[in-house]
Amino acid sequence: MIDRSLALSGPPLASATTAMLVVDMQKDRVDIGAPLFDPLAHEAIVPTRRMLELARATDVRVVFIAHAHRGDGSDRGRRADHRSAGRERPAPVEGTSGARICDALHPLPHEPLICKRRESAFFGTDLDTVLRSMRIETVVFTGSPASRALLPSVHDALARDYRTLFVHDPRTGTAPGTGDAIDTVLAAMAMTSAEVMSVDGFANLIMRERL
Amino acid sequence: MIDRSLALSGPPLASATTAMLVVDMQKDRVDIGAPLFDPLAHEAIVPTRRMLELARATDVRVVFIAHAHRGDGSDRGRRADHRSAGRERPAPVEGTSGARICDALHPLPHEPLICKRRESAFFGTDLDTVLRSMRIETVVFTGSPASRALLPSVHDALARDYRTLFVHDPRTGTAPGTGDAIDTVLAAMAMTSAEVMSVDGFANLIMRERL
Amino acid sequence: MIDRSLALSGPPLASATTAMLVVDMQKDRVDIGAPLFDPLAHEAIVPTRRMLELARATDVRVVFIAHAHRGDGSDRGRRADHRSAGRERPAPVEGTSGARICDALHPLPHEPLICKRRESAFFGTDLDTVLRSMRIETVVFTGSPASRALLPSVHDALARDYRTLFVHDPRTGTAPGTGDAIDTVLAAMAMTSAEVMSVDGFANLIMRERL
Amino acid sequence: MIDRSLALSGPPLASATTAMLVVDMQKDRVDIGAPLFDPLAHEAIVPTRRMLELARATDVRVVFIAHAHRGDGSDRGRRADHRSAGRERPAPVEGTSGARICDALHPLPHEPLICKRRESAFFGTDLDTVLRSMRIETVVFTGSPASRALLPSVHDALARDYRTLFVHDPRTGTAPGTGDAIDTVLAAMAMTSAEVMSVDGFANLIMRERL
Repeated sequence: MIDRSLALSGPPLASATTAMLVVDMQKDRVDIGAPLFDPLAHEAIVPTRRMLELARATDVRVVFIAHAHRGDGSDRGRRADHRSAGRERPAPVEGTSGARICDALHPLPHEPLICKRRESAFFGTDLDTVLRSMRIETVVFTGSPASRALLPSVHDALARDYRTLFVHDPRTGTAPGTGDAIDTVLAAMAMTSAEVMSVDGFANLIMRERL
Repeated sequence: MIDRSLALSGPPLASATTAMLVVDMQKDRVDIGAPLFDPLAHEAIVPTRRMLELARATDVRVVFIAHAHRGDGSDRGRRADHRSAGRERPAPVEGTSGARICDALHPLPHEPLICKRRESAFFGTDLDTVLRSMRIETVVFTGSPASRALLPSVHDALARDYRTLFVHDPRTGTAPGTGDAIDTVLAAMAMTSAEVMSVDGFANLIMRERL
Repeated sequence: MIDRSLALSGPPLASATTAMLVVDMQKDRVDIGAPLFDPLAHEAIVPTRRMLELARATDVRVVFIAHAHRGDGSDRGRRADHRSAGRERPAPVEGTSGARICDALHPLPHEPLICKRRESAFFGTDLDTVLRSMRIETVVFTGSPASRALLPSVHDALARDYRTLFVHDPRTGTAPGTGDAIDTVLAAMAMTSAEVMSVDGFANLIMRERL
Repeated sequence: MIDRSLALSGPPLASATTAMLVVDMQKDRVDIGAPLFDPLAHEAIVPTRRMLELARATDVRVVFIAHAHRGDGSDRGRRADHRSAGRERPAPVEGTSGARICDALHPLPHEPLICKRRESAFFGTDLDTVLRSMRIETVVFTGSPASRALLPSVHDALARDYRTLFVHDPRTGTAPGTGDAIDTVLAAMAMTSAEVMSVDGFANLIMRERL
């Protein structure tokens, strides 16, 4: 059954001009026990997988973004300083298994995978080139609301005039103590840059086009 | 007298390779009664002026950033949609008096003024060109911690490998109810992207170079 | 009378998604006796004016690009080195009368004017922001085929997936000795990056839409 | 023996801040009989290999650039149109053996390899990120003077204030009929954007630092 209240949350989306971005869902971050384990990213696997199935079923394009650095450190820049000062954990290393997208969200062969070196998915990557080539007008971010990549990526999408959504499902309670900070981030995002909605809300938006 | 605890907050800064950025301190935002009045930006006038005097006295370069749109709307893009949906107040209009830097922070003739169309001071501007031309390695942001321009600008500076500072003085209490959100933003920034310090902390850093 | 052979040179253009770019036609370059006088740019005034009238009559958007540097040199970078080595004449200085668009091509109030610091009209400017805001898909360059700005600007337009045209009329003979080099440039451009055509050819393309 | 006349062609280079860029020297272009065979790129193998040995011996950083598109076409954009119009041969396909750097110039494990989708080595890539991370101030391009990637890449390097060199050895005569066009390109480049020199000239420059 369709939740009509959610269905009213925005103008319809055209699947042909919409892309779903899966950002930083790499084994080093989301697999339990991995060196950069992030519990909120782990929690995001299930709703992201629902989104992935929904996107594939409705012909929404899917683009995967992975954050990884070359093993020789030639692309780390000032991040290396931060890390050595104990302020930052290292990102995954390109070519290692930990840098790969996690098993539950495995990319299909025709789904572009883009490697980035900085937080924003647009910085120093061909993401904008790919989105323009595919004539995308709306980008849908998924994943952890606490991801450092989220806000810079959303800002860069909006600056380039993409309609920008962030889809996530409410936390189930495995990461206590982070709620207020995340609520602050989401409220600020909803006010200024992205439409924030649940997976069901997105389903309603994309299905409305087909009715 | 120098506060030694503050002086220990980072490696020394070389004034010749440091630039202070004054972002969005325009009359439309900071003058009492102005159409886009932001009380936290207004509060930031006094510490920003102290920073300006400090920068000028120590040969730190100063760069002003103003956010303004052309009157005909040709550079607004999706921002126009947000505004019409009641989600965003319009930015200052280029060429109007409200778009000018406020009187208390008036630029000197040799201090570059850069106009931007999106939140980040780097997006679609020659800021990186100017910083590279002046051989800057460290950028110091000032102003309101609630400014929408702050996080995207800080991220873009860090992505380009500038050492990045945010200098502000604690609020004096004129904007009740915003404290928690701002503390969240500052804590996240200090963890991930910028060194956060007071004007006194910055003074100690820049003075240490001269001892 | 319409030249049918020219009318066949490409698919029709939609005026609503086409922008004409007038690049570097500033008094310092095109006015006889000006310090940076370029005879081929001077020659381009007449055909560019025809194009301007055509664009305005057909609702093609017009964007002016000017190359100028701040008087204090803070945005020159390595260009300054080249100049001091005698390899480059200085560009116009922002705010001087020589930096203004020449009288014959005077911008109307609603036509954006964008200032650049490097050869490409896209580098460090809001040109892409303006084109995206106006939903432009085709950019038409005019002016001197010997302009240093032309090739970098055309490449940057094509890289961003704009359909790219260069419109110019054959030389009338006032700049002897430059023909072969220009023919080389135009032939290379036609092979790789832009559709090269005369003002009449462009007129036929844009008129075809209206028939 | 050092050729003193060549040694005078510019200020000395510091090897620690110099990077040599090997652009588009992929099997599909340079191997005899390959689908995109370019005789001038083939000729450039020998001098580029000399440069590579020189760079490795003097601790100049080496960065490889490859042009390749995803097999599904999601990053081709308007290039696809040009190709279908018979105006452009397809670029190598990522992941195929033809997209790899040719055997004679095989990258060492610590030498970054960057994949690009458009002519310029800077467009939509992390090249600038890598160069900044390595604190590079001078970039040395090698390869075919007829490469489409050369001019856009040189312009983008200069726009970012890198000192820019193009090193190539005179043609040995295997590609008749292209001489005049190349001389035009090189003369224009030497006038406006890059220092043009032979491998011996570069050797003298980089060796002078060590005397």
